[in-house]
Amino acid sequence: MAKILAVNTGSSTLKWKLFQMPEETVIAGGMVDRLGLPGSKVKIKYGDGQEFKLDCEIKTADEAVELLLDKLLELKIISDYHEINGVGHRVVAGGEVFKHSTLIDRHGLQQIMDLAELAPLHNPAEARGIAAFMHALPDVPEVGVFDTSFHTSLPAMNYLYSIPTKYYKQFGLRKYGAHGTSVRFVASRTAEILHKPLADLRLVVMHMGSGVSVTAVQNGVSFDTSMGYTPVSGVTMSTRSGDIDPSLVAMLMKKLNITDPDRIITLLNNKSGVYGLSGLSPDMREIEATIDTRPESKLAIDVFVNRMIKYVAGYIAEMGGVDAIVFTAGMGEADAAMRKRIVDKLAVFGLKMDEAVNDNVKGEADITASGSSAQVLVVPTNEELMIARDVCIVGECL
Amino acid sequence: MAKILAVNTGSSTLKWKLFQMPEETVIAGGMVDRLGLPGSKVKIKYGDGQEFKLDCEIKTADEAVELLLDKLLELKIISDYHEINGVGHRVVAGGEVFKHSTLIDRHGLQQIMDLAELAPLHNPAEARGIAAFMHALPDVPEVGVFDTSFHTSLPAMNYLYSIPTKYYKQFGLRKYGAHGTSVRFVASRTAEILHKPLADLRLVVMHMGSGVSVTAVQNGVSFDTSMGYTPVSGVTMSTRSGDIDPSLVAMLMKKLNITDPDRIITLLNNKSGVYGLSGLSPDMREIEATIDTRPESKLAIDVFVNRMIKYVAGYIAEMGGVDAIVFTAGMGEADAAMRKRIVDKLAVFGLKMDEAVNDNVKGEADITASGSSAQVLVVPTNEELMIARDVCIVGECL
Repeated sequence: MAKILAVNTGSSTLKWKLFQMPEETVIAGGMVDRLGLPGSKVKIKYGDGQEFKLDCEIKTADEAVELLLDKLLELKIISDYHEINGVGHRVVAGGEVFKHSTLIDRHGLQQIMDLAELAPLHNPAEARGIAAFMHALPDVPEVGVFDTSFHTSLPAMNYLYSIPTKYYKQFGLRKYGAHGTSVRFVASRTAEILHKPLADLRLVVMHMGSGVSVTAVQNGVSFDTSMGYTPVSGVTMSTRSGDIDPSLVAMLMKKLNITDPDRIITLLNNKSGVYGLSGLSPDMREIEATIDTRPESKLAIDVFVNRMIKYVAGYIAEMGGVDAIVFTAGMGEADAAMRKRIVDKLAVFGLKMDEAVNDNVKGEADITASGSSAQVLVVPTNEELMIARDVCIVGECL
Repeated sequence: MAKILAVNTGSSTLKWKLFQMPEETVIAGGMVDRLGLPGSKVKIKYGDGQEFKLDCEIKTADEAVELLLDKLLELKIISDYHEINGVGHRVVAGGEVFKHSTLIDRHGLQQIMDLAELAPLHNPAEARGIAAFMHALPDVPEVGVFDTSFHTSLPAMNYLYSIPTKYYKQFGLRKYGAHGTSVRFVASRTAEILHKPLADLRLVVMHMGSGVSVTAVQNGVSFDTSMGYTPVSGVTMSTRSGDIDPSLVAMLMKKLNITDPDRIITLLNNKSGVYGLSGLSPDMREIEATIDTRPESKLAIDVFVNRMIKYVAGYIAEMGGVDAIVFTAGMGEADAAMRKRIVDKLAVFGLKMDEAVNDNVKGEADITASGSSAQVLVVPTNEELMIARDVCIVGECL
């Protein structure tokens, strides 16, 4: 029996959940918002729907962690620091270094910093979060759980771009993917639902949040994934462009008279996707609400569905078939209409959904219609739980 | 009965074929090489395997056309300029202006020049070729036949990138595609072979030359195509990267300390593709010859096949099925092993090829195996003939 913290440190936030393992129950959870900014906000949910809130000034991750641990004691969520058996940290970029969740020491911390180029906003913040817990809980194992690890199994055929290979060797320019912890959780849960070994399944997992990715899972590992060197590529997303002609980067620089290419990449990350196409909102719910009244909204949805089905189809071809397609994350779990649009377009491959079941999904659901060539599932993701599980294994906490 | 010239003017070449229409027979053909460079070379093939060669100095397209017309008389290929009833010109970029092959006057010439941004090396040279024929044969119709026209039928869903739509409206940043004249010819011939109206067929046409594109043809028109704003995107090609994460453009600029983004685009056009991956050659035949001895060659081929099947699969999904997949152009017509690799990987969709027939293809061939879910064809392309046909129709030459 162990208590495990799953932590996600951003540039101005620190989110966490405290799990009781191996029961996998959530004891408490919360976040520090506006970390390092004026007017920080602390929120903790615990016990039987109780909530603790505090407005204060928190300047550093160290201060945030100290406060968090104090409050865990004060609110009697734990009675001693030693009850915390391990801390797991979400890390966005693990590059080719971190192929699995890993016990992080000073050396590992440096490696995470060294990978900052791959996730300039994320890795440094995450490293600060890990360092803070190392300092506050020196005897507790810190485990790094990397968004990219699950995709380190990609074959070279799929992780290499068709550019001179020296640029891969010199600069690490290759596909790393993202959402790996989510996809790993969902794939593993899918195997349980289907009562089959994951290694025997060919899955297409559609992680549809504000970031959207499609992953082909074969032999229990990631075989191909839509996000690339960075999460900007692949399918159309909330504000990210997904795949575009690379010439557009050069052309936009010229047309907009911009000399810093990163400004174009920022535009492709923050102003594009269904937001750029609809001219309305990055939120698919708002776009869908105007599908009948705004042609741009209809178009944005058509583009989104179109890019999704092309990736799914490509992955079915690559794997030589598919046993299940799986929807997960915010939109994937909640948006029945979007699921229907996607599955309807995949009817050519024999996929069919039960519309009545699809319309009433709450949590996990098998929305396969009878006669479908493969299973169609909705599996809520749970990255925090996956992190906690990894901490138990890697940190030998149980 | 008419004699029609089909002309392809490049920056340092002028290629041509003289057709007898409507018989569609080639009377003569040839090229001027090193146009505008020291040591120009003129070659003309005509009659019963006869060949004329000349080394001289040709500075301009005007001089090249004058010489060509002189030689046509001198070699008695024609007995009077008036026998030439029309001239068709390949033009690479027609943008959104030229939706069909078009009679080109001074205004049209200016429009072709105005589209030079979309094909900086091609359109100006082609305009010079058209102007030269206008000057030499003032009473003969000049017809522009555009690589992009066939793709102007793409639905907005497929031609728009997921970037703010204002950049499409202001700067014309959209998918234009390429190889349209080739695909149009092949699609039309495929319908004849299958004895079905083209409008009733769903085709995937794989134009596999040194440039490679995949096109979905539905209701007789282009529905989606792999090349984009420029021909650099889509599948892996001989020296072109195809799709990459757009972030790589910015990252390569930084890593290589390059401030001009066009230098990266040039790298993606000229040093990438199977050439960059294999480290050997842009010629697939050389790469295939070392498939068993060089792992990089095997990898380059795996990547190529992988990108091809993902596009084909995506287009099958988009069209809700496929009636025929068609191989064309240099590699598509000549490389039985590559065709087999691609069709084998599409077995998941029920596609099957007759290997014995595939191994012995000369020219047009139906390589479908019995039990295949759709036809598998090899259809040699003939862009020059398509140009000549268009001249007859648009120029009202018959």
